[in-house]
Amino acid sequence: MDIFELMEKGGHEQIILNFDKETGLRAIIAIHDTTLGHACGGTRMVDYASMEDALKDAMRLSKAMTYKCAAADEDKGGGKGVIWGDPKKDKTEAYLRAYGRFIEMLKGRFVTGAADLNLNEADGSIMGKESRHILARPKEEGGSGNTGVITAYGVFVGLKACAKFIWGNEDLRGKKIAVQGLGAVGEPLLGYLKEGGMEIIATDINEKALQVLQTTYGYQAVKPEEIYGVDCDIFSPSAIGGILNDRTIPKLKCRVVAGCANNQLENEERHGRMLHERGILFAPDYVINAGGVIQAIDEEQGFNPARVKMRTERIYERLLFIFETAKKEGILPLEAANRYAEMRIREVHKVKRLHVPE
Amino acid sequence: MDIFELMEKGGHEQIILNFDKETGLRAIIAIHDTTLGHACGGTRMVDYASMEDALKDAMRLSKAMTYKCAAADEDKGGGKGVIWGDPKKDKTEAYLRAYGRFIEMLKGRFVTGAADLNLNEADGSIMGKESRHILARPKEEGGSGNTGVITAYGVFVGLKACAKFIWGNEDLRGKKIAVQGLGAVGEPLLGYLKEGGMEIIATDINEKALQVLQTTYGYQAVKPEEIYGVDCDIFSPSAIGGILNDRTIPKLKCRVVAGCANNQLENEERHGRMLHERGILFAPDYVINAGGVIQAIDEEQGFNPARVKMRTERIYERLLFIFETAKKEGILPLEAANRYAEMRIREVHKVKRLHVPE
Repeated sequence: MDIFELMEKGGHEQIILNFDKETGLRAIIAIHDTTLGHACGGTRMVDYASMEDALKDAMRLSKAMTYKCAAADEDKGGGKGVIWGDPKKDKTEAYLRAYGRFIEMLKGRFVTGAADLNLNEADGSIMGKESRHILARPKEEGGSGNTGVITAYGVFVGLKACAKFIWGNEDLRGKKIAVQGLGAVGEPLLGYLKEGGMEIIATDINEKALQVLQTTYGYQAVKPEEIYGVDCDIFSPSAIGGILNDRTIPKLKCRVVAGCANNQLENEERHGRMLHERGILFAPDYVINAGGVIQAIDEEQGFNPARVKMRTERIYERLLFIFETAKKEGILPLEAANRYAEMRIREVHKVKRLHVPE
Repeated sequence: MDIFELMEKGGHEQIILNFDKETGLRAIIAIHDTTLGHACGGTRMVDYASMEDALKDAMRLSKAMTYKCAAADEDKGGGKGVIWGDPKKDKTEAYLRAYGRFIEMLKGRFVTGAADLNLNEADGSIMGKESRHILARPKEEGGSGNTGVITAYGVFVGLKACAKFIWGNEDLRGKKIAVQGLGAVGEPLLGYLKEGGMEIIATDINEKALQVLQTTYGYQAVKPEEIYGVDCDIFSPSAIGGILNDRTIPKLKCRVVAGCANNQLENEERHGRMLHERGILFAPDYVINAGGVIQAIDEEQGFNPARVKMRTERIYERLLFIFETAKKEGILPLEAANRYAEMRIREVHKVKRLHVPE
């Protein structure tokens, strides 16, 4: 495997392999593009089958972060950390601190948080003992804490943009929404939906949670497999990725797909087109779910909840712009989002020609 | 290929793959061990057959630098930069500056110089426009310039240590020395040898140079292949590596092998042992040729020639210590040198436990 070939194909700047012989830590940091600013992205821990799997995961996710940050109008590049280890056995204090030390070595070229698979705030707190560049820290350590609520808020704001574009009015009152997944984002989303006067149908693979939350939010519960066929205005994927595919898209009875899950389209081109041909508007996931990353990035300047809320509300205008561009140019919304991100990077690169005295 | 497996085997901390899409630069920086201090090592440019070849070269050479710096009593770790490209076609200003920028990103965790294969001072000067961490800079840019003379001086000092150990007297007057290679180090070495009153036999693959230098230094010239069989006290390899092997060692008629070439033993264990069994003392190459790296490192604190000379002269005591350790422990000199380097790293690691307020 020629890693440079993968880098050239993906447009990646840097791949950093870190090994600590004393703790056994193996971690890959992929830095995709830093034209807009230092790289930013979460760290996950997975017991990959091979180094190649770990590398490709890091490369794919770092590139996604470039687009996410650029489309969120943040002045940040894209990066990703992956730790190749067994989350049940390897996570000692020394192991997590060794990772923090490798992050610190980059002196802020990459900022990250323990906010992805198999890592949590407490792990991030340990990493943070060795580095100033760990974000998504617990509140008691000056961090912004959980990002689920702001992500849900951003999705809710995004739903209004979808309504405005499709029905000419951002008012969601009375609209029917089918929510798949009631986790860290899905649950707070229910609150916004209820407040907004929407009619909610919900599902979750955790039957118990589905029952318990029903008493609070008063939705109609359906079995996980039934959610795709629910007759509704909006389908909101808020669980895992890849759920928009050959099997599920034909079942959909909605006008809009808009939710917080990452990588909702199994195949971006094919399934994006399939939704379009069925007359369903797709809200690019990395645009509508940017609230979390906006909050984490805000920690760098000292967490300010009011500023985060304001920046998250801009998802509304951005989505509308993307939908209108897609319509005007005859392209898919995801393509329009990608073009917006790429345009920003290209434009910012242009002005770097000009020398500014320090 | 699992790079982490190679790292674990070699004890490497970090492998950094850098790709610049605008200039096409592909560069690997290998950082072996930074227990003693930031990593230090040259950069070379080679049109490797594959990424794997480039990677393995960087890994091997970075490890060698850890040992070289540690054995030279420098407080530096080992690193190496390799640029995978065609030196005849790719070396544009942007390309070299892109490399400098990748070096600068490391913020001094790795300091390097364009002092190896297919790169020269002028290339380093261009890299240095983007980074403060390029050493071996031209004199007119505040660098220390050519390192050949100080390396030769260190070898000469080392020869005295060999004489002291073998003949009980460091005086080299009247001793016969066979020098292989009259390049950047070999030629200035001739000056020291002549000044020291030695009888010199020399060769070089460049016949013209061999003739021209003869008038200045008055040596006996022999054909390249004849140098191994010259009846002498000291054989001094000052050209390429791997020249001590199954074919050449049986030909040697000397008591000492001591020269500036890197990696003189084709196989460290086998050929080190073969020399020993023939009663020939081998001066570990990375110890005796450390003058160059001592000078380059000195640039970091503002080049001071007197300090460099003094530090280079310590090669004498260090070699004697290594020879005596080898004798006492019944091991080969190279093994004794490796143990000395490893011991320093282990010992320095111990005291890092103690917290010092900033």
